Amino acid sequence: MVTIYGMIDSGNCYKPRLLMAKLGRSFRHVEISSHDGGTRADAFTAKNPNAMVPLLEFDDGRVLAESNAMLLHLAEGTRFVPQDAYARALTYQWLFFEQYSHEPYIAVRRALLTFPSRKKDATPERLAQTLERGEKALRVMERRLDETPFFAGSAISVADMALFAYTHVAGEGGFDLSAYPAVAAWIARVENDPGHVPMNWLPAA
Amino acid sequence: MVTIYGMIDSGNCYKPRLLMAKLGRSFRHVEISSHDGGTRADAFTAKNPNAMVPLLEFDDGRVLAESNAMLLHLAEGTRFVPQDAYARALTYQWLFFEQYSHEPYIAVRRALLTFPSRKKDATPERLAQTLERGEKALRVMERRLDETPFFAGSAISVADMALFAYTHVAGEGGFDLSAYPAVAAWIARVENDPGHVPMNWLPAA
Repeated sequence: MVTIYGMIDSGNCYKPRLLMAKLGRSFRHVEISSHDGGTRADAFTAKNPNAMVPLLEFDDGRVLAESNAMLLHLAEGTRFVPQDAYARALTYQWLFFEQYSHEPYIAVRRALLTFPSRKKDATPERLAQTLERGEKALRVMERRLDETPFFAGSAISVADMALFAYTHVAGEGGFDLSAYPAVAAWIARVENDPGHVPMNWLPAA
Repeated sequence: MVTIYGMIDSGNCYKPRLLMAKLGRSFRHVEISSHDGGTRADAFTAKNPNAMVPLLEFDDGRVLAESNAMLLHLAEGTRFVPQDAYARALTYQWLFFEQYSHEPYIAVRRALLTFPSRKKDATPERLAQTLERGEKALRVMERRLDETPFFAGSAISVADMALFAYTHVAGEGGFDLSAYPAVAAWIARVENDPGHVPMNWLPAA
């Protein structure tokens, strides 16, 4: 059985948990958190030198970092990775968009406002910058979702799971999703897809 | 023939040019730059609402954004995307590492120091932060390259092209690569792989 090292309150860590739940696959959850230094401890950086969660560990001890890489790897051959070459390329596109243009603003602003360990970084300048860039990301998403029900096209894919992870809790970062009706409707579509579980879901021990 | 909209001095835009050159495939280059507002002009944001280059345009008018998505899509079925599932997953991992933990510091510090349009953003705090995080990324790369000749394992992949793009010009961002001998040796290996072209290479018009 694979192990996923992760934080219960991190959207990045939620991504592989959500996918595994939807696929009905068993895994072991090990809580490793940046709040208490767990991600920076030697025992963990020996597994992931980049000192970040989530981290996927296979039975044979090999590991895989980066939440979106886990999504692509674990979902290969399932309905969550498109077969069509262009739809697959768009899945890649939105996964990279999520990590470069979305997470650093929408996830980070939520962390600045809600994680006690990040309070010292929540300067007015940082809050203003993450708000502006996060709203830009939401506008780009709104425009896409005005055209298609899901990011890669007509069917849900791992790109939707990646973008859902922090978008559905964007309100905790001070983003008002009522200004983005197509995004709000898409959130409901993702939640209604079979096998959905909430962010705080964990597998039975 | 596909079109690649991009900037001649951007590492992100160099990535698909380098891959196409190595594959011996023809393409049209159209210079669109953030220096002069080109990426923010309506004619361009109609194609890419995220207002960034590179952007790949197919013959039928469909487009693909995100440099690393282009690499995965264009290289599918070639020697630059591993067949082995785990090596392929590692390729994804290092592509996401590049966009999240490397480019925002190593590329951005180079832009702050060398692009006149970014000079106003080059505060002491920003230069210190990008130096610290960029050096962390280089340490993670050094550790990996102490184990394997290329990021996904024994053979070059698109992950190497993505990480090469800004690492080989990291000196322009004030990073001293002599402190990272495995990284320096890997740069030479990438440059010696057949079909390599420099960053300022463009196809014949």
